[in-house]
Amino acid sequence: MTHWRSDAIVDGMRQRVFTAAPGTRDVPSVLWSPAAVDGPLPLVLIGHGGAGHKLDDSRLDLARRYVLEGSVAAAAIDGPWHGERVGARPEGWGDLETDAMLLDWRATLDELVALPEVDASRVGYGGVSMGTIFGLPFVANEPRIRAAVLGLAGATPRLLREAARLECPVLFLMQWDDELFDRPSVFALFEALGSEDRRLLAFPGGHAEAPGAAREESTRFLLEGLTREAASG
Amino acid sequence: MTHWRSDAIVDGMRQRVFTAAPGTRDVPSVLWSPAAVDGPLPLVLIGHGGAGHKLDDSRLDLARRYVLEGSVAAAAIDGPWHGERVGARPEGWGDLETDAMLLDWRATLDELVALPEVDASRVGYGGVSMGTIFGLPFVANEPRIRAAVLGLAGATPRLLREAARLECPVLFLMQWDDELFDRPSVFALFEALGSEDRRLLAFPGGHAEAPGAAREESTRFLLEGLTREAASG
Repeated sequence: MTHWRSDAIVDGMRQRVFTAAPGTRDVPSVLWSPAAVDGPLPLVLIGHGGAGHKLDDSRLDLARRYVLEGSVAAAAIDGPWHGERVGARPEGWGDLETDAMLLDWRATLDELVALPEVDASRVGYGGVSMGTIFGLPFVANEPRIRAAVLGLAGATPRLLREAARLECPVLFLMQWDDELFDRPSVFALFEALGSEDRRLLAFPGGHAEAPGAAREESTRFLLEGLTREAASG
Repeated sequence: MTHWRSDAIVDGMRQRVFTAAPGTRDVPSVLWSPAAVDGPLPLVLIGHGGAGHKLDDSRLDLARRYVLEGSVAAAAIDGPWHGERVGARPEGWGDLETDAMLLDWRATLDELVALPEVDASRVGYGGVSMGTIFGLPFVANEPRIRAAVLGLAGATPRLLREAARLECPVLFLMQWDDELFDRPSVFALFEALGSEDRRLLAFPGGHAEAPGAAREESTRFLLEGLTREAASG
């Protein structure tokens, strides 16, 4: 039922823009995969941050790392009031938007794992800041996610409650001088993670000052995690 | 002037036990290198923790990772009142022992970089807990160290002062539930690091409960750091 809207080679990757769950919520989505696929591939879902969107420069950079360097598939969706869903941020956004975003991701994942090129047993999630505020509840309620990169976010009652449900390996990123989320709040969210395999990785600098190494470690963590799952499973 | 005491193949590595600075302080040392060396290699200095010694199981495990997997050289020395220097720990050990250990490492490094198989421009240091308490002042005063793994230690006036002098990239390891060093003290030492390129990596568990991933990340950080130096230098 997916509505495929475009299919092109972009930066050496096959890029397909589509609408997941058409007619219900219309989730604007994109799938990147190697130009030539030989068998089902791991898939990384990429959550964007505030003011970003599914096709922003940062998403494309990550997609290139996953697809061209890692030879896996990657996908992104527009969050509410972002990208194709541009509009005013609702007053008091919170649980309702989080619940809706969780269903958006789930609907997108349902459609992606039905594709022959995607291996449903090797799916990861990576998203920080708003990508964690919306993504952590999704990951916590999605047993198909086998490894996650989260972070640049602090504790809220909802996030603390959801974090405890997590079971997959988690790399939790932190900016030591984050002006948006104070250290005790970030530490509390890290501590609340239910995953036995969890690690906190902190770099100096403010919220938007993560060095290139943060991105290198993130993509490596997910690629290794999804490959290791395959080796042991 | 080095006194070479043994030269054997151990676990597929060439292992040479020697005495650095013989006649002055007699530093019991060991050098591991690939059985076949083709040109000068990077060198990792491995500092042991409390109750360890230069040839303990943990040192040998690290040596195998560096030499057999990383194809670099590695070396270790016995700390004061450890290994061949076994004896009573002096009352009120502190600055004097730290100063002496700094000279021990320097003397050992002087002799190692004189060997044709060691590249003096690509030397790293890895040591946590006592390996940081003794090793951080050494690294801070040794410009030949190009990358360091430190951690599992908290702030002292001496360590804070020395930390500020560090300039090389540092991976700083932490055990989140460390019962020997409380979090504020560990954070203070991390924050004091003068290196622009520094990162804190924390795992759950007590002081002695670091997971295998901590060791994997440590060896990778040093191997990549010393290789990257070569590529850019």
